Amino acid sequence: VLTVTLNAALDLTYQVDGLRPGASHRVSSVHAQAGGKGINVARVLASLGHSVTITGLVAGSVGVEIRGELEAAGLRDELIDVDGQSRRTVTVVDGDDATVFNEPGDGLRLDWPDVRRRIGALIEPDAIVVASGSLPAAAPPDAYAQLVRDVHERGGRIIVDTAGPALLDAASAGADLLKPNDEELLAATGGADALAGSTLLLALGAGAVAVSLGPDGLMIVRADEVVTARPASFVNGNPTGAGDAAVAALALALEDDLPMHEAARRAVALSAAAVAHPLAGHVDQRVHRELLTRQTIEGEAR
Amino acid sequence: VLTVTLNAALDLTYQVDGLRPGASHRVSSVHAQAGGKGINVARVLASLGHSVTITGLVAGSVGVEIRGELEAAGLRDELIDVDGQSRRTVTVVDGDDATVFNEPGDGLRLDWPDVRRRIGALIEPDAIVVASGSLPAAAPPDAYAQLVRDVHERGGRIIVDTAGPALLDAASAGADLLKPNDEELLAATGGADALAGSTLLLALGAGAVAVSLGPDGLMIVRADEVVTARPASFVNGNPTGAGDAAVAALALALEDDLPMHEAARRAVALSAAAVAHPLAGHVDQRVHRELLTRQTIEGEAR
Repeated sequence: VLTVTLNAALDLTYQVDGLRPGASHRVSSVHAQAGGKGINVARVLASLGHSVTITGLVAGSVGVEIRGELEAAGLRDELIDVDGQSRRTVTVVDGDDATVFNEPGDGLRLDWPDVRRRIGALIEPDAIVVASGSLPAAAPPDAYAQLVRDVHERGGRIIVDTAGPALLDAASAGADLLKPNDEELLAATGGADALAGSTLLLALGAGAVAVSLGPDGLMIVRADEVVTARPASFVNGNPTGAGDAAVAALALALEDDLPMHEAARRAVALSAAAVAHPLAGHVDQRVHRELLTRQTIEGEAR
Repeated sequence: VLTVTLNAALDLTYQVDGLRPGASHRVSSVHAQAGGKGINVARVLASLGHSVTITGLVAGSVGVEIRGELEAAGLRDELIDVDGQSRRTVTVVDGDDATVFNEPGDGLRLDWPDVRRRIGALIEPDAIVVASGSLPAAAPPDAYAQLVRDVHERGGRIIVDTAGPALLDAASAGADLLKPNDEELLAATGGADALAGSTLLLALGAGAVAVSLGPDGLMIVRADEVVTARPASFVNGNPTGAGDAAVAALALALEDDLPMHEAARRAVALSAAAVAHPLAGHVDQRVHRELLTRQTIEGEAR
C-alpha cells in the first residue's frame, strides 16, 4: 500500500488542566506526531504489521520534524521535499475535551509536474494507493483526478478520501473507492441522503463509495449492492483519525478482493478501535479484536 | 549588548475567529517568531538600531526554526545547539483576547560546563549582558549566579530578568540590575511590597532592582535612591514582551551610565510602546516617540 498525503502536517497534542479562553496555560505534556490523513492511514496499517510506503509533500523545518518523527516511529517515508513550510495542527486536550487549531495549508510552493512524476515513480503494478486529505493551495484542483489516472495507467487501484470539488473530480476520473464522511458527501454532491449522494458519485464514474457515518458505522455503495455495518456498542474516545482507520481496513480489503460485507465489517471494527485510542493514527488492539466478532451487518442487492 | 536566553522558544501566534473550547478551528493566519525573553530584548534593541548578539540554547528541529527566523529577521545569532528539542509557545488571538499555551522547558539535554564556557567566550570586556527568562530543567539552579560571576570576571555588567530562587541567586551573586515584575518580586522575596522586596534583593548583593508594575510603570531601587516612572496615559494592547522592552531600555541606560530617573523614563516609554505593538519583541515607534516626552517621574533620595 502506498499512501499519498499532499497536505502532511505536524500534529501537536497539548495536555492542559482547565482550558480558559484569555488565560495563560502551562502545557503539562506535549506529543508531536506526523499527521495528515494519509499518514494516519499508514500508521494504522504499519501497527497491524502491513508493509506501507508514505509519500506526499513536506517543506521547511516543520517538514524536518514530520520526517524525523516518522523515522523514529519506524515508518518508511518517501515524502517529497518542496519549498515553503509544512502546516501544524495543535490539539489542546483538557480532560475529555479536545480543542483543535488547524493551520491553513497554504505554506507550500511546488512544481506540480515534477511532484506528479515523482509520486508516479513510486506506484508499483498492482499497487493499492490511498490518497487522503485536503489539497494544498499550491496543488492544482484536479490533482487527485490526475493521480487516479496515473495509478490506473500503472495497473494499480486507488482509494480517495477527500471533500469538496476534489471528491467529485476523483469520482469523474474513476477512483476505485471514495471514502467521504456523510457530511462531506452531502456537501459535495447535494444529495438528499448518503445513498443518493453515493449514487451520484457512482454515476460520475467511481467504482464504489464508502460513507463513514460516525457512531452509526459505515455504508458501502456499489452499482449492484449496498452494505451497512455498525458497531454493536458505542465506543467512547477521540474520533480524530477514525475515518483514516476505516480507510486502512478498506485498503487491505481491496488488496485481498474481500466481499463488501467483510470490507465494511473490518472497516467499522478498525474505526471504532481508533476511537478507543487517544491518538489519531493508532488503534486499541483489544477493542479491535473484540469488535471484529460483534458487529451488525445489513446488506441488500440493489 | 549580549542577550542570553537559556530557554529560547518558537512563538507561534494563531489568529482565529471565535475561540470555543471543544471545537475545531481554522487558523486564518500563522506568525512564527523566535522567542524567549532574551530574544525579545535583542529584537527590540535591533529595531532601535543597536548592535546586539543573541546567545542561549536551542535544540532539535524547533531550534532550526528558531535560528531560521532570526536569520530571516537579520538578527545575529550565537545560539548554542544542544541535544533534545526546544520548546514552543502557542498564542491564540481571537479579537482582543489572547489565550496562551506554553510548552514546558524540559526538552533540552546539555553539558552545562561546556555551555558555560561557550557563553563565556562571547562576553567581551565592558559588555552589557542581559540574561532573561526561566532556566531549562537541564541547567543547574544557580546557572544565572554562575553567569553573573563570569560576566564580572571579564569586566562586564549584567541585568538578570527572572523569577523564583534564580532571582535570589542572581542577587546574591551581585547582579548589577535585576528586573522582576512586582508579582515575581513578592513571590520570590516574601516582601510586603515592591520597595521591601527590592530592599531585600539589594541586601543580598544586587546593585539595583527595577520592578515593572504593569500599567503603573516602573520603579528603580538602589541603596541611595528610589525612582518611579509611569506613563502619562494608559496604552491598550498586548502586554507580552513589555517587560522585555523595559529591559532593552535599561541595558542601553546601563551602557551609557544614564542617571536612574532617565533610565526609568526610557524604560517606561519603550515598554508602553511594546504594549502598543501586537507582537512581543516589537515596539510601536510612534507611541515610543510620543511617550518619551510625556511621562510622570517621581524620585526621592533614601
